[in-house]
Amino acid sequence: MNTFGKNFRVSIYGESHGESIGITIDGVPAGISLTKEDFMLDLSRRKSGKKGTTKRIESDEPIISSGIYNNFSSGSPIHISFKNRNMNSKDYDSIKDIPRPGHADFCAIKKYKGYSDIRGGGHFSGRITLGLVAAGVIAKKILKDVKFKAKIKSLGKDDEFDIEKSIDKAILSKSTIGGVVECTVSNLPIGLGEPFFNSVESLISHIIFSIPGVRGIEFGSGFDSAKMTGFEHNDRIIDSSGKTETNNAGGINGGISNGNDIVFRVAVKPTPSIYKAQNTINLKTNKIEELLILGRHDSCFAIRTPVIIEAATAIVLADLFLENNH
Amino acid sequence: MNTFGKNFRVSIYGESHGESIGITIDGVPAGISLTKEDFMLDLSRRKSGKKGTTKRIESDEPIISSGIYNNFSSGSPIHISFKNRNMNSKDYDSIKDIPRPGHADFCAIKKYKGYSDIRGGGHFSGRITLGLVAAGVIAKKILKDVKFKAKIKSLGKDDEFDIEKSIDKAILSKSTIGGVVECTVSNLPIGLGEPFFNSVESLISHIIFSIPGVRGIEFGSGFDSAKMTGFEHNDRIIDSSGKTETNNAGGINGGISNGNDIVFRVAVKPTPSIYKAQNTINLKTNKIEELLILGRHDSCFAIRTPVIIEAATAIVLADLFLENNH
Amino acid sequence: MNTFGKNFRVSIYGESHGESIGITIDGVPAGISLTKEDFMLDLSRRKSGKKGTTKRIESDEPIISSGIYNNFSSGSPIHISFKNRNMNSKDYDSIKDIPRPGHADFCAIKKYKGYSDIRGGGHFSGRITLGLVAAGVIAKKILKDVKFKAKIKSLGKDDEFDIEKSIDKAILSKSTIGGVVECTVSNLPIGLGEPFFNSVESLISHIIFSIPGVRGIEFGSGFDSAKMTGFEHNDRIIDSSGKTETNNAGGINGGISNGNDIVFRVAVKPTPSIYKAQNTINLKTNKIEELLILGRHDSCFAIRTPVIIEAATAIVLADLFLENNH
Amino acid sequence: MNTFGKNFRVSIYGESHGESIGITIDGVPAGISLTKEDFMLDLSRRKSGKKGTTKRIESDEPIISSGIYNNFSSGSPIHISFKNRNMNSKDYDSIKDIPRPGHADFCAIKKYKGYSDIRGGGHFSGRITLGLVAAGVIAKKILKDVKFKAKIKSLGKDDEFDIEKSIDKAILSKSTIGGVVECTVSNLPIGLGEPFFNSVESLISHIIFSIPGVRGIEFGSGFDSAKMTGFEHNDRIIDSSGKTETNNAGGINGGISNGNDIVFRVAVKPTPSIYKAQNTINLKTNKIEELLILGRHDSCFAIRTPVIIEAATAIVLADLFLENNH
Repeated sequence: MNTFGKNFRVSIYGESHGESIGITIDGVPAGISLTKEDFMLDLSRRKSGKKGTTKRIESDEPIISSGIYNNFSSGSPIHISFKNRNMNSKDYDSIKDIPRPGHADFCAIKKYKGYSDIRGGGHFSGRITLGLVAAGVIAKKILKDVKFKAKIKSLGKDDEFDIEKSIDKAILSKSTIGGVVECTVSNLPIGLGEPFFNSVESLISHIIFSIPGVRGIEFGSGFDSAKMTGFEHNDRIIDSSGKTETNNAGGINGGISNGNDIVFRVAVKPTPSIYKAQNTINLKTNKIEELLILGRHDSCFAIRTPVIIEAATAIVLADLFLENNH
Repeated sequence: MNTFGKNFRVSIYGESHGESIGITIDGVPAGISLTKEDFMLDLSRRKSGKKGTTKRIESDEPIISSGIYNNFSSGSPIHISFKNRNMNSKDYDSIKDIPRPGHADFCAIKKYKGYSDIRGGGHFSGRITLGLVAAGVIAKKILKDVKFKAKIKSLGKDDEFDIEKSIDKAILSKSTIGGVVECTVSNLPIGLGEPFFNSVESLISHIIFSIPGVRGIEFGSGFDSAKMTGFEHNDRIIDSSGKTETNNAGGINGGISNGNDIVFRVAVKPTPSIYKAQNTINLKTNKIEELLILGRHDSCFAIRTPVIIEAATAIVLADLFLENNH
Repeated sequence: MNTFGKNFRVSIYGESHGESIGITIDGVPAGISLTKEDFMLDLSRRKSGKKGTTKRIESDEPIISSGIYNNFSSGSPIHISFKNRNMNSKDYDSIKDIPRPGHADFCAIKKYKGYSDIRGGGHFSGRITLGLVAAGVIAKKILKDVKFKAKIKSLGKDDEFDIEKSIDKAILSKSTIGGVVECTVSNLPIGLGEPFFNSVESLISHIIFSIPGVRGIEFGSGFDSAKMTGFEHNDRIIDSSGKTETNNAGGINGGISNGNDIVFRVAVKPTPSIYKAQNTINLKTNKIEELLILGRHDSCFAIRTPVIIEAATAIVLADLFLENNH
Repeated sequence: MNTFGKNFRVSIYGESHGESIGITIDGVPAGISLTKEDFMLDLSRRKSGKKGTTKRIESDEPIISSGIYNNFSSGSPIHISFKNRNMNSKDYDSIKDIPRPGHADFCAIKKYKGYSDIRGGGHFSGRITLGLVAAGVIAKKILKDVKFKAKIKSLGKDDEFDIEKSIDKAILSKSTIGGVVECTVSNLPIGLGEPFFNSVESLISHIIFSIPGVRGIEFGSGFDSAKMTGFEHNDRIIDSSGKTETNNAGGINGGISNGNDIVFRVAVKPTPSIYKAQNTINLKTNKIEELLILGRHDSCFAIRTPVIIEAATAIVLADLFLENNH
């Protein structure tokens, strides 16, 4: 279901080539200062048009229909939508019979019995994350003392990366690349999250894995922690505020924020739409055939995800922050 | 909150050194054959007493209070509890002032204002996962054609591991080790999961991160996918059942099961309780002091997790399986 | 929170004098035939402009932004909105200091700390039910064999009523009247609902009490049942389909539909906005003063509720119908 | 599903003749003083054995397994169970073929396909409300300044009633009677509840209709309000605390508590188990036959409900009280 959250609750809708996409945000306390301008910075960070992103110039102008009154949240649900424009729907005519490798086409056809709108990825499109970014802006306002900082840690094979070069290489080879994004949250209060089932990691991973293309997530020392001894891994507490010498725990113990920075990394796969021919099944003829995907696509969706990851994280943390036991 | 699931819903309670722990399982269809014996195999797989696990021999006898009638599920909630026995609560007297490094003690003290029962980890204890294992047995029965197989992939630093040796080394050094567990789910129907927010990855990671000590999760090619090109990463569909040549997607596209094996790996940190002295803060004196943890502990909790990970995964997949649109 | 339902889930937003109001409907199975025309009959039944309703002629044209593709539900969330037009917001200038008797003004001011948009009732307005009516149309389509029939049972003091006369009398006296609506649902399958907590009565009453102005609800013989003996009240089952001789249970036993007609009655209070002066407190001066309410209002909101009550009921029953155990 | 609540969340289980029944209560803030003795008064108010109630002397001793530590809530879920004793299960042998009029037997057989435990009403039994009463005790502690007072307003046909006489008459006639209970909640803060969908009336009615035998609920002037004019019905606000001259609104405007007493009435039907022969269908022979119900039963379940109604109301109001926006 397209609703997430308990106290700060978001409900999304929309398809890539439909009339518009949008989000309803419920649980925003009354009296938070909010104007259209507040959304512009984060929305532009997500925008396409830069090197490595699709040539479809999307309309990212937020339309606020409710919940904001005289430049303050009114306490009722906030609804924000975005028109869809500049679509080439005819590029997608063949998908319903010839599912693209690495895409959700095959699953969508089966799950929705052929009725889903698969133009541009339909409801699976990365465009739907636009609403998350808008909701993230509000979440960040609620968490006014908290700092969010997500950045690309690596692209493709290169750890010491040169973004430009990695992307140029991908474009040249008519393929695409993935990447790893690291997100740090500073100045979060102690005590957010629950031991079962709503640990901070549980909730963050839940929403992060809704972002198209995410393949993995790790907190603190993550997969490396499996190779450490307890003595190496345990973060020593060095003062009564809970500050630790190291941060292998990524700021979370027993599912609960411990006052140190929340740190996690997200693996984003390479965009599945490539400009090279690939084999796939034709569901009509039941034969393997070669498919060349048309349309305009990101060659590296990963570089658009940091602001989305920040927003998703802020949504979760605002939800926990608004919990009564905090 | 200690409830998880929409159609197959579990609610847990209990503390490590309380009277008992338990779980209520709601949404089990009437008519599933169920006896006490059905629980025994998985409960014994989780049991302590083996090399690498705590010497506290726990009572793992399930007490079924409701929801099973004449050896079949009755359609009303199933409640299963387990008595707590063989506890040495006096080992925990000092924790409330001297939080153990790597443990949730500090967070618990702050969040619950000193009122929480921290003996044996209290509600944060790995013992609480006993209920998950019991619920997993029922979930597996609902998914009767589906196969779950979780196994240790590595322990400590060794990829090509010899379990015995890794554990012996940890015990000898008075420390503990972590590990990576890989879980494979075969024969799952196509179409489980949602694009937003309840992707298969979202739900599995949500519950997996409730298991104490988990630091990361990755699906299919996981973090390695970030280093691949789209051409390398895309799984080619080779027949109309959706079978793919490779399985970089880990059996999931767009959040939805695609009919191939679900494959994911979980990083488990080393158990934080070690038999070596460590520095930490004394919250009463506000001074750093040396702490030697008493009590009996796992030297490698990771080796107890495969059956818990299977159970948690089965809980999520049974929930999705019972969704109406399937 | 402005979200309701488990399998068929609606999320509403909007204020009476904001930019637009709307609803997102999630969980609609793919493949339900749906066009804009399908909404017109029920939307017009709710419409204002008739005798006894407000002179504000509202725009009730549904704008469908997502979830319907080629005239069928696509399986993703359906979003429907309605523009707000023909508003006289200046009529509401004084409300923020002088709460109207019988209205939510006082509660809204306190709960939302003065930030809520109270023009035209804001988010409390009966206009918000427009989205429910639209969702009800889809719910009725899902329950295609089920018949819904809500009608006015009484208006004001008169049981054997003449609608025209009752309303004329109210208009003449510059006051307003309430009424009782009876709703009958026929041909519903046996087995919908749960003993705890989601009985059919629980869910229907939950949503019905969201409709502004509802003061009571009773099922079957309702309050009269309290005066009957068990022998009189028990409905005798007369065939193996579960048909009963009488229907004191209103089609529900133990919270579960029994195959007979669901029957319930709803008490709707008189519209609080009247054209007569009333005393109330001035929160600024802290003195009692006389208030004459301006603006255009229903003299009998009750006559607009039957289609809303049908819709709300259909929403609940579609939700239960889509439950897996059915 | 057998879970209710958002912030203060209860999960129930159990059947009348199973091993035990119970409830898990989640979301109780740490640090509430709680001992076994705190439960005794309300549990005894619900107890059987008095005139008009069943001769089955039930075990109402609460067993607290978790969540209370050193006589204070610990912040983790509280689990309370009650053993079932003194059952005559053999009285129920015939029910599975011969559904009792006015009972849930027929619905249970159909919904649970013959697998449900229908002895003593199984999961439909009024005994399950015992857990609600226990949870209500904790809810009342959270709402420490709030007063709950539910009392019988009428029994059977008599408005000016003599309880003893009404019940004697019912016993003599081998039948049973219903009644109306009025509940008043004083000293509740302003601002609890939401306009949509979680109005105070919505949530109270939701849980009240889970109590077996409830047929109707009305708030404030209730069904009578439908007969009043707006001028008569509107409660005039007489001071800046929101106090009103009359209380036709029952303490709620727009779904939100307005600071005046919450007042509502609940209609309870006569107990369906009577000592007189009744006709019903035999599902095996498909013929009508005469049924005489054995076993021990309440002749007036209504007189046991006031404390249950108080508890259910307290559960809802504690849930709203713990909402962040309060």
